[in-house]
Amino acid sequence: MPQNLPPKPVIVDTSKSEYTRLCPVPLTDVSLKDSFWLPRLRDLREVTLPSQYQQLEETGRIDNFRRAAGGLDQPFEGWFFNDSDVYKWVEAVAWTLATRDDPDLKGMLNEVVSAIEAAQDENGYLNTYFTFEQVEERWTNLKDMHELYCAGHLTQAAIAHYRSTGEDRLLAVATKFADHICGIFGPEDRGKRSGTGGHPEIEMALVELARTTGERKYLDQAAFFLDMRGRGHLGGEAYNQDHLPFRDLIRMEGHAVRAVYLNAGATDLYAEAGEKALWETLERLWVNTTARQMYISGGVGSRYEGESFGEDYELPNKDAYAETCAAIANVMWNWRMLLLTGEARFADVLETAMYNAVMVGLGLGGKSYFYRNPLAGEGDHQRQAWYQCACCPPNIARMLASLPGYFYSLSEEGIWAHLYAEGSAALELLDGRKVELHQRSGYPWDGVIEVEVQGEGEWGLFMRVPAWSEAEWSLAINGESISKVEKEKGYLRIQRSWNRGDEVRLELPMSVSMMESHPKVSENAGRVALMRGPLLYCLEGVDHPGVDLDEILLPSDTIFTTAFHPELLNGVVTIQAQGTTRPKGRVWDDQLYRPVASLSKDQTVEMTAVPYYAWGNRDAGQMQVWIQRGDRIY
Amino acid sequence: MPQNLPPKPVIVDTSKSEYTRLCPVPLTDVSLKDSFWLPRLRDLREVTLPSQYQQLEETGRIDNFRRAAGGLDQPFEGWFFNDSDVYKWVEAVAWTLATRDDPDLKGMLNEVVSAIEAAQDENGYLNTYFTFEQVEERWTNLKDMHELYCAGHLTQAAIAHYRSTGEDRLLAVATKFADHICGIFGPEDRGKRSGTGGHPEIEMALVELARTTGERKYLDQAAFFLDMRGRGHLGGEAYNQDHLPFRDLIRMEGHAVRAVYLNAGATDLYAEAGEKALWETLERLWVNTTARQMYISGGVGSRYEGESFGEDYELPNKDAYAETCAAIANVMWNWRMLLLTGEARFADVLETAMYNAVMVGLGLGGKSYFYRNPLAGEGDHQRQAWYQCACCPPNIARMLASLPGYFYSLSEEGIWAHLYAEGSAALELLDGRKVELHQRSGYPWDGVIEVEVQGEGEWGLFMRVPAWSEAEWSLAINGESISKVEKEKGYLRIQRSWNRGDEVRLELPMSVSMMESHPKVSENAGRVALMRGPLLYCLEGVDHPGVDLDEILLPSDTIFTTAFHPELLNGVVTIQAQGTTRPKGRVWDDQLYRPVASLSKDQTVEMTAVPYYAWGNRDAGQMQVWIQRGDRIY
Repeated sequence: MPQNLPPKPVIVDTSKSEYTRLCPVPLTDVSLKDSFWLPRLRDLREVTLPSQYQQLEETGRIDNFRRAAGGLDQPFEGWFFNDSDVYKWVEAVAWTLATRDDPDLKGMLNEVVSAIEAAQDENGYLNTYFTFEQVEERWTNLKDMHELYCAGHLTQAAIAHYRSTGEDRLLAVATKFADHICGIFGPEDRGKRSGTGGHPEIEMALVELARTTGERKYLDQAAFFLDMRGRGHLGGEAYNQDHLPFRDLIRMEGHAVRAVYLNAGATDLYAEAGEKALWETLERLWVNTTARQMYISGGVGSRYEGESFGEDYELPNKDAYAETCAAIANVMWNWRMLLLTGEARFADVLETAMYNAVMVGLGLGGKSYFYRNPLAGEGDHQRQAWYQCACCPPNIARMLASLPGYFYSLSEEGIWAHLYAEGSAALELLDGRKVELHQRSGYPWDGVIEVEVQGEGEWGLFMRVPAWSEAEWSLAINGESISKVEKEKGYLRIQRSWNRGDEVRLELPMSVSMMESHPKVSENAGRVALMRGPLLYCLEGVDHPGVDLDEILLPSDTIFTTAFHPELLNGVVTIQAQGTTRPKGRVWDDQLYRPVASLSKDQTVEMTAVPYYAWGNRDAGQMQVWIQRGDRIY
Repeated sequence: MPQNLPPKPVIVDTSKSEYTRLCPVPLTDVSLKDSFWLPRLRDLREVTLPSQYQQLEETGRIDNFRRAAGGLDQPFEGWFFNDSDVYKWVEAVAWTLATRDDPDLKGMLNEVVSAIEAAQDENGYLNTYFTFEQVEERWTNLKDMHELYCAGHLTQAAIAHYRSTGEDRLLAVATKFADHICGIFGPEDRGKRSGTGGHPEIEMALVELARTTGERKYLDQAAFFLDMRGRGHLGGEAYNQDHLPFRDLIRMEGHAVRAVYLNAGATDLYAEAGEKALWETLERLWVNTTARQMYISGGVGSRYEGESFGEDYELPNKDAYAETCAAIANVMWNWRMLLLTGEARFADVLETAMYNAVMVGLGLGGKSYFYRNPLAGEGDHQRQAWYQCACCPPNIARMLASLPGYFYSLSEEGIWAHLYAEGSAALELLDGRKVELHQRSGYPWDGVIEVEVQGEGEWGLFMRVPAWSEAEWSLAINGESISKVEKEKGYLRIQRSWNRGDEVRLELPMSVSMMESHPKVSENAGRVALMRGPLLYCLEGVDHPGVDLDEILLPSDTIFTTAFHPELLNGVVTIQAQGTTRPKGRVWDDQLYRPVASLSKDQTVEMTAVPYYAWGNRDAGQMQVWIQRGDRIY
């Protein structure tokens, strides 16, 4: 059924997409050897995925498949969308096994895949909730019941499984279900049903299935589901992205994961068909997201109510929703936008979201999670081992498992380096030449990136200069400083005839930046956040005993020092500074307003900031990203 | 029917209340001659009350009474609670006529009072909505339909009418209706109906009716209505203050006007019966209000949704609700708390709310209004000539009309001066001695208050030292500085044997204060507000052409200058200072976060602040109370 060549484990296969600039690199071509990601990938394999398997078993999520196959006489367990958690776990295991064999994981995977296979109906339908007494309810409530959503996750899992293992048994299941769906939904003048899914996801999945199988009908089906939005099939609600036709959207609204998955699917569709109106909408929505609605962490979906985007500049800190899944969706969307364009602004958002908004969702050690991700707290927001609605844990697992696939891309001009970390890549240029790149770097803790090139001939090496390094980067080749180099949309284009062993040295400034917010973000007015490289920092109560973090003021001329602490939070660079606080005796008690204190009475306080992704892994206490700006005591 | 002595126009008659410290002064005993209030009282008489009469006629509010009396064959017009607007206007006119005759107003008043009289049923019932086709619906929905609320406003209007004019015709109407209500509602074991009103108001009214008539049953009826709350009669909702019994309340919740009117009624009940649990509740709620839920303007009820109190520290600026009626309720409640205790903290809140949160509700010129009172805006919040739900305009009229009654109180110890303004008072001490006080002062623009005492014998003069003057006030008697004076709960007690012509000079520091908020008020973090004396200030766009108010930063060491501008906004003291702004070229555009600018690049900007009460009377534009704190450029 699939193409003739053996499949390669690429995340999003734009190699044949007409309207993309970049082609993917199989994640097996990239080998990470760094101190940041490599231990996380090991924990993923050794801790996260086995413990998630156990959760899936204990909560009946896998039993639901066994039951659907007729093998268990017990009620359906849990949420009606629980199949999707299993599919996301399958996807995570598949990507993981692509880079390193693991017999235990492989055994679990085969067990689950067999259960999925056995649960499929003769006609291709597959959803364990809509079995037995619920069969008649199939497709009766596309708005709420997530059948198309689960089908999308099945498809993504199947593609990952196929690309990673070369086996097509799960892909056959997904294809059969997709065919069933294509037979039911479509233009009414062809005797099919109108409609679209309340929770977008299947759009991305069907485009990728078209790419995998070469069958155009899945692309058409994805386009159909996109085009059906905004026509009242889902009650006309913004929550479900049904308030407007997609091409008429002017801002991000409604449930954040849904909205951003939809954008990712629309981006995939643009990659194949190049429709101008689609691109204009995506560009408009991207600007709205990043310039009006995104946390500095890269998280999106600020509003608790409806797990949704809010008004422009509505970015509460303590009450942030910022679901981990929405941050993952943001990575997925920006990856697709990057593939289309080769513009670093998309890689910037991807990197910010990945290091901060996504990684904060996974506890150190790999078996605790955050679902919501506030940017301030009083100690009442705690990591959990699992959630009843467990969308985030397996989602972060599949994102992390696929991470090596996000480091490089290819184009006819050469190789694109998006992300940096110690490691190597054995790449095949689009013309078939082989190149090895060896990155030596302490990134994200250190800004020096040395790339040893093993390959000959002329081609371009596109190295991303992150937005935060602005004009302060420096480049050298074979020890010689290069002052003139073409910079194209955030990438340095190093075009030359390479010799084996050529050394490219990019140095990015790893200084501490005090960041301020647009003044319309009311919660951040008069506050600053600390960033160093791609990492967002925060204060935690545990590092400031006896100090109310709300009372720490950071003068504008603060001098920061940094230090790497290998024993702290699995190894982090901390930021130290002298802040000030109001005089100790001057408590607020039952005051709501008071005259500003005389500065000379303020006191200094030693402040330590830790990476935001690592918060909530020690004693519960206050946390704060946005610190009050204060005055220096002279 | 009422007591034998001719009535006196006092606002709240605690002269016979057992559990109060202070007795009222008739508003006719106080004669204001100042430049702040006197022109406003003139506008009230000459512009506001006649124009409101016209609105009441044009919107059918008075016709509703004529219709109910059988004199008009047309449908009921407007909201079912529109009678209350007429009653509040009657109350305002009554207090106004007490201090100065006005034949035109008197004519309108008599026309309206006659219409009210004629609309009353034989059995005493009076509500123009529940007439003809709606008669069967009377008392069927106490939760939503405001019958008891309207009865309360009728009663308050009737008492004001009686105390101001000496005529008892409207009081007879109100008493007859109150008797009707007392006959219907009460303990079930006495064959009456349980229940209470969805919108508190009648509690205050019935206590005052008991004070006016000497009839204890109205007091019992008020207590009954209070006690019926929190028992599910109103659906158990916080919106209606039915979620808990009153004495179990721990914080302010639900619809703000309702909640604060209820507190005022409970305070009146405490004044008569001295129940400890009631006092403890009131004290708890007062602390919650003032320390957690009050705007710096004295406004309350921050949340748009449900016109309600929010969470503690939920005090949005641009999206503030802060209804004018809720600020008026806050004055009414604090006045009653002050009468109980003689503690200046209540007078402080009263004064803050009166000058700022109440007065902002009335446009200069006296015929435009604010219903909501945001503390920041982009120019889209405009004053209106009237509202379909017109509770605020006549409410501010009755508050302003009664203002002279809030300046002084009496106790056995002597005279209490709560508020300051040029003018005189001809008072009668509780032992019958006569005293005249002549205040010479430019208050609120100037902090010097000279009181010439015309009266002899020993008694105490209690002069309030506002909280904002802290330890910086000074006192002199007959030109001699007094360093030692007893200060009791915010009042200087000047106890002496007075001689005719004794001069007391209190000087309050009229300097500009930069105020900061409790750090948990997230919107105000890093921001300061300017106060001078009792007045809150704000920036308006019209005074800062070409400058985005969101971009103005105010350094902590700012030097303020002030100047009186007689031609500006009917005469105000403005505050000038040099703020800073970010470099002009450095626009935000589509940036949401950016590194903090180098300070040396900041630019100075001339800043002018005007009193908050006066905003929105010139060209529409930005407004901001809370200004960003910035750094000084050296």
